[in-house]
Amino acid sequence: MALSLSELCERFGCVVFAPQQSMVVGPLTGIAPLSSATQEQISFLANERYLDDAITTQAGAVLCNASCAERLFGHTRSLLLVCRDPYVTFARVSQFFFKPQHGFSGVSPHAFIDSSARIDPSATLFPFVYVGPGAVVGPRSVLYPGVFVGGASEVGADCIIYPNAVVREGCRLGERCILNPGAVIGGDGFGFAPTGDENVKIPQVGGVDIGADVEVGSNASVDRGALLNTVIGEQSKIDSLVQIGHNVKIGRACFIAGQTGVAGSTEIGHRVTLAGQVGVAGHLKIADKVTVLAQTGVSQSLNEPGVYVGFPARLNREFLRREAILDRVVSERLEERKNRLSTKKSKAERQSDEL
Amino acid sequence: MALSLSELCERFGCVVFAPQQSMVVGPLTGIAPLSSATQEQISFLANERYLDDAITTQAGAVLCNASCAERLFGHTRSLLLVCRDPYVTFARVSQFFFKPQHGFSGVSPHAFIDSSARIDPSATLFPFVYVGPGAVVGPRSVLYPGVFVGGASEVGADCIIYPNAVVREGCRLGERCILNPGAVIGGDGFGFAPTGDENVKIPQVGGVDIGADVEVGSNASVDRGALLNTVIGEQSKIDSLVQIGHNVKIGRACFIAGQTGVAGSTEIGHRVTLAGQVGVAGHLKIADKVTVLAQTGVSQSLNEPGVYVGFPARLNREFLRREAILDRVVSERLEERKNRLSTKKSKAERQSDEL
Amino acid sequence: MALSLSELCERFGCVVFAPQQSMVVGPLTGIAPLSSATQEQISFLANERYLDDAITTQAGAVLCNASCAERLFGHTRSLLLVCRDPYVTFARVSQFFFKPQHGFSGVSPHAFIDSSARIDPSATLFPFVYVGPGAVVGPRSVLYPGVFVGGASEVGADCIIYPNAVVREGCRLGERCILNPGAVIGGDGFGFAPTGDENVKIPQVGGVDIGADVEVGSNASVDRGALLNTVIGEQSKIDSLVQIGHNVKIGRACFIAGQTGVAGSTEIGHRVTLAGQVGVAGHLKIADKVTVLAQTGVSQSLNEPGVYVGFPARLNREFLRREAILDRVVSERLEERKNRLSTKKSKAERQSDEL
Repeated sequence: MALSLSELCERFGCVVFAPQQSMVVGPLTGIAPLSSATQEQISFLANERYLDDAITTQAGAVLCNASCAERLFGHTRSLLLVCRDPYVTFARVSQFFFKPQHGFSGVSPHAFIDSSARIDPSATLFPFVYVGPGAVVGPRSVLYPGVFVGGASEVGADCIIYPNAVVREGCRLGERCILNPGAVIGGDGFGFAPTGDENVKIPQVGGVDIGADVEVGSNASVDRGALLNTVIGEQSKIDSLVQIGHNVKIGRACFIAGQTGVAGSTEIGHRVTLAGQVGVAGHLKIADKVTVLAQTGVSQSLNEPGVYVGFPARLNREFLRREAILDRVVSERLEERKNRLSTKKSKAERQSDEL
Repeated sequence: MALSLSELCERFGCVVFAPQQSMVVGPLTGIAPLSSATQEQISFLANERYLDDAITTQAGAVLCNASCAERLFGHTRSLLLVCRDPYVTFARVSQFFFKPQHGFSGVSPHAFIDSSARIDPSATLFPFVYVGPGAVVGPRSVLYPGVFVGGASEVGADCIIYPNAVVREGCRLGERCILNPGAVIGGDGFGFAPTGDENVKIPQVGGVDIGADVEVGSNASVDRGALLNTVIGEQSKIDSLVQIGHNVKIGRACFIAGQTGVAGSTEIGHRVTLAGQVGVAGHLKIADKVTVLAQTGVSQSLNEPGVYVGFPARLNREFLRREAILDRVVSERLEERKNRLSTKKSKAERQSDEL
Repeated sequence: MALSLSELCERFGCVVFAPQQSMVVGPLTGIAPLSSATQEQISFLANERYLDDAITTQAGAVLCNASCAERLFGHTRSLLLVCRDPYVTFARVSQFFFKPQHGFSGVSPHAFIDSSARIDPSATLFPFVYVGPGAVVGPRSVLYPGVFVGGASEVGADCIIYPNAVVREGCRLGERCILNPGAVIGGDGFGFAPTGDENVKIPQVGGVDIGADVEVGSNASVDRGALLNTVIGEQSKIDSLVQIGHNVKIGRACFIAGQTGVAGSTEIGHRVTLAGQVGVAGHLKIADKVTVLAQTGVSQSLNEPGVYVGFPARLNREFLRREAILDRVVSERLEERKNRLSTKKSKAERQSDEL
């Protein structure tokens, strides 16, 4: 697959800035980082930190914004492809060059499909896939080996479910969802009523309802609701090894990074970012556009947008101020101790001098 | 499935309080939250926080304790089903209404069973199950697709092993255990002897011994022992993505919540609760009935029952007192700084006035 | 399998110290902890803490270093097998006695192998294994049920891939690698370009390159690179439920303990130890021989070897000093408050006396 410069500009809405000394660029055949791109490849500058790399790159063309283009102009031999958001454009160009290749198509005779399941004829089912009673698999969706789709579950159109991911009974995936290997949708929530000696299981009979364009990372787990559904809003992205508890509701376009856990019945708004290893307690509410930094422990609702950090979670500027003040307290104490020791010492020296 | 009021009371030990104005209740056919239950359904009030919902609910009957029943009496149209522990009764009623449906029964010809394995004729083995040499699967147990039971392992009666869960060789599950999808029992423990350049693997040749009524969450991992067994006591419940290291011993009726990790050789007593994302270092002892709050780092043995929190773990009341005092130190410093600044400013103002 | 004393000494480089009163030792048939070893078994003393157990043990022979041997001599009936590093020797002796037994060999007709894959005739493929187009499986490697090897991926010689582990397309495992059950190599990295309403996926088209003698724990995840490879150096050991982000580079002989996460593009040197539940932010560098203690949050590069701990990460000695000083501040405040209260009280008492 190759793109001429004009096709690229038209398709992705870029404007070419061609420095006089720029190289002659033929069809572009791929995309690569600034440091390794060749003349046939496009690269991108999404962070001014890498401005120097954009000067020395061998890339035929570099996606960048207008401000970077001005600074680069005359200093690089690459064509500059100016666009509003070079990172988004990079993503779209990359999607153009790299279409997923599955290495298999059609429905394998080694898949097991319950007779009451409905599989769209354009879907791909690898060997060792299991689809249960009444389940539905939509057009063009691809189910890799070891994928399990439970009874009455629905997989929308154009989904990719990687090896050994599991969608238990009564769950729904919207269109264009991606489940990475080992992801589990609809495992039992953690609900027990303790009598003391015995922990009586509360059947988890809700499902999971996942909107369009959601991605779930490798070995992540989204538990089914106890009585109602756990819900993940469209465009939300869940990283590897994340745990979403039962009855949780997550809004649109959120990012939940690696190893974060959200406990049961918590409701998270739209465009929320939870960085890696964050923990959110159960039965809380997190407002739209909140950002929670890595390893933070959220034990109370966060009703205002803002950046939160620490255990317990505080606004980031408060956390930093608190840490700085405590650091000063500590260093003053150390200073005092040093002075006391040196006073003692000089006293002792004077005494020994006096002798 | 339906229950008449008298059957329900007899079976679950409830007493009916019927307010004069209460609705006429026919057979009850299900269970639902207060907010969505209908006249044919039972609901429950396990937390006084939700008292208002119990007044406005449309549920035909509400499980509650005597104290709540008194407060509700005359304010709700639902029948009140008074019982000692409404949450436990809710769990048991829910178990009555919701029996797991597997959508498959019998032993699939697409399962692979070693000729020396012993499968009880009442067990269910889905397609793509593997059972190794000398392994045993007990009566009525259900093994979903992709389940692996290694050589000489034993699965007790009435277990449910969900898709792609793994029980490696030489492990044992007691009766009525549940493994959620992707759970791994008996992966190698993390044991290596470093020479500097090389990390020499220590073969992990112990097994895992899991008592009756244990549940393990989605993608959790219970590692096999190095030489002896890792042990999980009966009625203990392990949540999704938990990691239990090699040689760990966990007592009866513990709760280990999501993403918690227990490092090698630690011994945990009975009825211990570890909340989410807790870390417990290796070679420690945790006393019976200890509760550890979320994200806590336990680096020393906890010999007394109590509630612990923080990094490093402290008794919760000490942690809260320490945080409060440090908060006061910080706010005093901020106050001082503000006063200094305003003194400076007023001095400057006076000086400018004097000019 | 059994070893005579002289074979053992020759093969593993030990010297026998036989106390006069020592038992007569025949062939040694296994290895066990000090507390449970019998006369036919070898045990080991790798930590002076267990010196007393080495005195009372029933083991036929005990691996120990020269200093322990001196202290034990005359106090134990076991033969002492003196070696430089008894833990390493224990590991090697253990490897001698415990060769992995897989309970299956050859290529199952129930495995699915793409016609363009190359499987060494000495490899073992259990039922329900999938090997994709152009993939390679090396000599003597063992692939358990549910293992997926994607297109053009390579599995080196003598690897063991346990049930339901996944190696996606375009990844490489060196010789003697072990993947525990459910481990995922090459899941998509977490890369999206947010437009606000939409999170545009950045195709993850790099692979994962894993060196020789690497082990990956149960349900761990090593994400594929965005454009280039994620790299794990030889002899590095990765524990259960660890998450390695895209483009990460890990050097030789590192230990990454359970539930630790390393975010994208971070570079970790050689012989680095990350204890359990550590989080390392993205785009950092960690120097050779750094040790990071459990639950630490690393948000800046660590350029010097040393032991780090806390959130944010500090040198361990600084962390401990800071905690000790803050503890003192807290206890002084508590003391002051107590004194104020008792002064108030005694004043009040005096006043009441005066009345």
